[in-house]
Amino acid sequence: MVVKRKKWSEDFAEWFRSTLIDATVMDYRYPIKGCGVWLPYGFKIRRNILQILRDLLDSTGHEETLFPLLIPESSLAKESTHVQGFEEECFWVTHGGLTPLKVKYALRPTSETAIAPMLKLWIRSHKDLPLKLYQVVNIFRYETKATRPLLRMREVATFKEAHTTHATREEVEAQVMEAVNIYKEFFDELGVPHLVSKRPKWDTFAGAEYSIAFDMVCPDGRSLQIGTVHNLGQTFSKAFDITYENMEGKQEYVWQACYGISGRGVAGVLISHGDDQGFVIPPSIAPIQVVIIPIIYKEIEEQINKTCEDVAKRLKVANIKVELDLRADLTPGAKFYYWERRGVPIRVEIGPRDVKQNEVTIVRRDTLEKQNCTIGEVTTVIRTLTEEIMEDLRGKAWRWMRDNVRRVDSLEETKQLLAEKTGVVEVLWCKSRDCGLKLEKETNARILGIPLDLEERMIDGKCISCGRKATHIVRVAIAY
Amino acid sequence: MVVKRKKWSEDFAEWFRSTLIDATVMDYRYPIKGCGVWLPYGFKIRRNILQILRDLLDSTGHEETLFPLLIPESSLAKESTHVQGFEEECFWVTHGGLTPLKVKYALRPTSETAIAPMLKLWIRSHKDLPLKLYQVVNIFRYETKATRPLLRMREVATFKEAHTTHATREEVEAQVMEAVNIYKEFFDELGVPHLVSKRPKWDTFAGAEYSIAFDMVCPDGRSLQIGTVHNLGQTFSKAFDITYENMEGKQEYVWQACYGISGRGVAGVLISHGDDQGFVIPPSIAPIQVVIIPIIYKEIEEQINKTCEDVAKRLKVANIKVELDLRADLTPGAKFYYWERRGVPIRVEIGPRDVKQNEVTIVRRDTLEKQNCTIGEVTTVIRTLTEEIMEDLRGKAWRWMRDNVRRVDSLEETKQLLAEKTGVVEVLWCKSRDCGLKLEKETNARILGIPLDLEERMIDGKCISCGRKATHIVRVAIAY
Repeated sequence: MVVKRKKWSEDFAEWFRSTLIDATVMDYRYPIKGCGVWLPYGFKIRRNILQILRDLLDSTGHEETLFPLLIPESSLAKESTHVQGFEEECFWVTHGGLTPLKVKYALRPTSETAIAPMLKLWIRSHKDLPLKLYQVVNIFRYETKATRPLLRMREVATFKEAHTTHATREEVEAQVMEAVNIYKEFFDELGVPHLVSKRPKWDTFAGAEYSIAFDMVCPDGRSLQIGTVHNLGQTFSKAFDITYENMEGKQEYVWQACYGISGRGVAGVLISHGDDQGFVIPPSIAPIQVVIIPIIYKEIEEQINKTCEDVAKRLKVANIKVELDLRADLTPGAKFYYWERRGVPIRVEIGPRDVKQNEVTIVRRDTLEKQNCTIGEVTTVIRTLTEEIMEDLRGKAWRWMRDNVRRVDSLEETKQLLAEKTGVVEVLWCKSRDCGLKLEKETNARILGIPLDLEERMIDGKCISCGRKATHIVRVAIAY
Repeated sequence: MVVKRKKWSEDFAEWFRSTLIDATVMDYRYPIKGCGVWLPYGFKIRRNILQILRDLLDSTGHEETLFPLLIPESSLAKESTHVQGFEEECFWVTHGGLTPLKVKYALRPTSETAIAPMLKLWIRSHKDLPLKLYQVVNIFRYETKATRPLLRMREVATFKEAHTTHATREEVEAQVMEAVNIYKEFFDELGVPHLVSKRPKWDTFAGAEYSIAFDMVCPDGRSLQIGTVHNLGQTFSKAFDITYENMEGKQEYVWQACYGISGRGVAGVLISHGDDQGFVIPPSIAPIQVVIIPIIYKEIEEQINKTCEDVAKRLKVANIKVELDLRADLTPGAKFYYWERRGVPIRVEIGPRDVKQNEVTIVRRDTLEKQNCTIGEVTTVIRTLTEEIMEDLRGKAWRWMRDNVRRVDSLEETKQLLAEKTGVVEVLWCKSRDCGLKLEKETNARILGIPLDLEERMIDGKCISCGRKATHIVRVAIAY
């Protein structure tokens, strides 16, 4: 069975925009640009995805908190690199009622400077460390680029940000690696293929020593950053004077890391597995895992509906999330279309022949492959199928991405591939800033950074920019 | 065993403020007035309480969504009563980066006007109704009164608001009653005693036909509004032109209700069951239901710790949330204090005598009563105890409240009781606005409204204000 992915790949932006609304995930027609509404069905997908992330964080010693949205300008301004990176991107609250505020407040663009003054109050001694906190909140960026549903919002309504504080440089380095592993596990569980790269110096988070990012490749060949991990060093502890008493009784500045995944994490799942029919939701996070649709023939309508109800009950008892679609004003075909668009991973059809043979027809959303089984087997078959589907989704998505990451030797070919938007290009690099910026300029693309997920250690060749001996592989892409 | 509630009742404001921070529920020292941080332990209590509310709403056909925070002034201004009620209370965003916005944005003070433009897009026909949505979000009020931790915040970080849309007046009336019942069930499950009253006309939500409120009585005798239900009639549907095609093919305006519970819902739980030692968290929502504390005697330290671990394991297997406090640098007494302040409902002590007799000592947080049981019985005993504790908490809180709601005949006595802040006073009333406002003025108090939770139907007596025949009982209190 060939899955159609023409609209998905040839008109990706439109495919994503229209599927989000048709599949009732997000409605983007809110009267403020860059703000959208999470609809009930989309909200459940979002919640289930966040639950995986929360479980991973909770089980590794992170604790969930909730910090205020508003950040006084005086806090934001305490760290100069940070404020420079964000002040022109902030929404500013200047009035309470009709009264002008003495100090204006930023809507958090990220929460380092909301958290820092509290850490200063909380942290006294080495016994208070490490402190690993996270929150799931909305953040705001006054984007001047074109906004895009879920991919570039002004209100990022879903932002999981973790902030950790440590006693030593070694500990914060270890935490950065733990964070990378948590995010790998998260995206792997959802079958979202990703590249892990260390961003170049000039593309580091404002205030960080270095940044590691997770990128995926979109159907249109552009890369999409879906997660970041930053080593903040002592930038904020020095700006906010956050110290602890070490074992020897001496005051030391703390070390910090932060890492985040936004609504793009949800987008990553929807994009990776989608096709021309709409979304395909991985069974593990699907709000509805199975939809049952009666194929009514008037003579035995009652018997068919009864069988549908029986099957629904069996699945419910087995803790499978099932929906029985008995709407009388829609044809089976219209129902197929309706649920395919929403990406319900498994459809069960029950018609006259099925009832006669005490069977059901099971259809996979991802491949549209059909199979039959007896009613007695239905729970077992569907259980097995959900695992198979997840494996297949994961495999297909990874194959697609690997086909769209290309190793290239010549600048000409790099330029051509990027101009044609064929995905991510890997080239050799001497790691000099000049060569990096030159490469970005010549290709009109962005350096994603040095791969952290390749075994390859020996680099043998020349820098694509200057022709001198290369020291690193580097990834380049047209980025969202 | 007598529970100490002197600080609780005599210095309630200070008791609540200091316990919130000592019990690590909320830290209020954020650099913006009226904004606080939900700490990990408090966050879990909040989450567990919200889960009860979410379950109640989900099981009655409500669906969770997420609407944007920002509301354009043009939307807020569409309904004139509503904007008058809120514009001086809004925080206003006027700039994106350094650029002044063409239309300024309010941080939602409530979401009617964020939701209305979307309802207009979504609702076409009677088949789209009823539509019952809710969300859990932060809302903002530029409070000019003194802010108070959790009770009067500028960022209300926890606001569950439901918004429902219906075809007829009868249906919205029925929904209002459903909402009242859901909130009753919610507060009953948490053992929070409440009064349900219909607010007087002059104290109705801006834009509503009428408002029903849930109030509790605080230890200092002041009332605290902990939930509200509003019948919005067609106010917003007319302002935003939200219509549907009825069965006869005619366009009609929809009918709406909204109802909300804020962080005060959490405060209600903490306040109702607290005492001078700190909070007492109901077992059903306690992040930690049982804490195990070894009473170490050096000679048999290893054996005691081993027994503690064994008991912890038994409880975990039985799905009881248990914490084993093995901190070496704290005495048992210091640990008792630490966990009592946080309100962990059950403490298990294991010392040399317990180990010798293969027993444990179980202590209730609410009464400090002790009992012993064998290690084999521990799970069963604790299960039973959690139910007993919940019953006792509920009973004690209700008795306390009933003692603090008084029926009074004379204006003098009403004035005196309210001046002494002894709780809620019920008096007879002719229901005229003049008498109501006069009563509020003379008592310096607030009319909470006409009881909806009393069986009493026959009113025989005179209006406390004008002396004419009374038609209703009315509640008066010094309100938060």
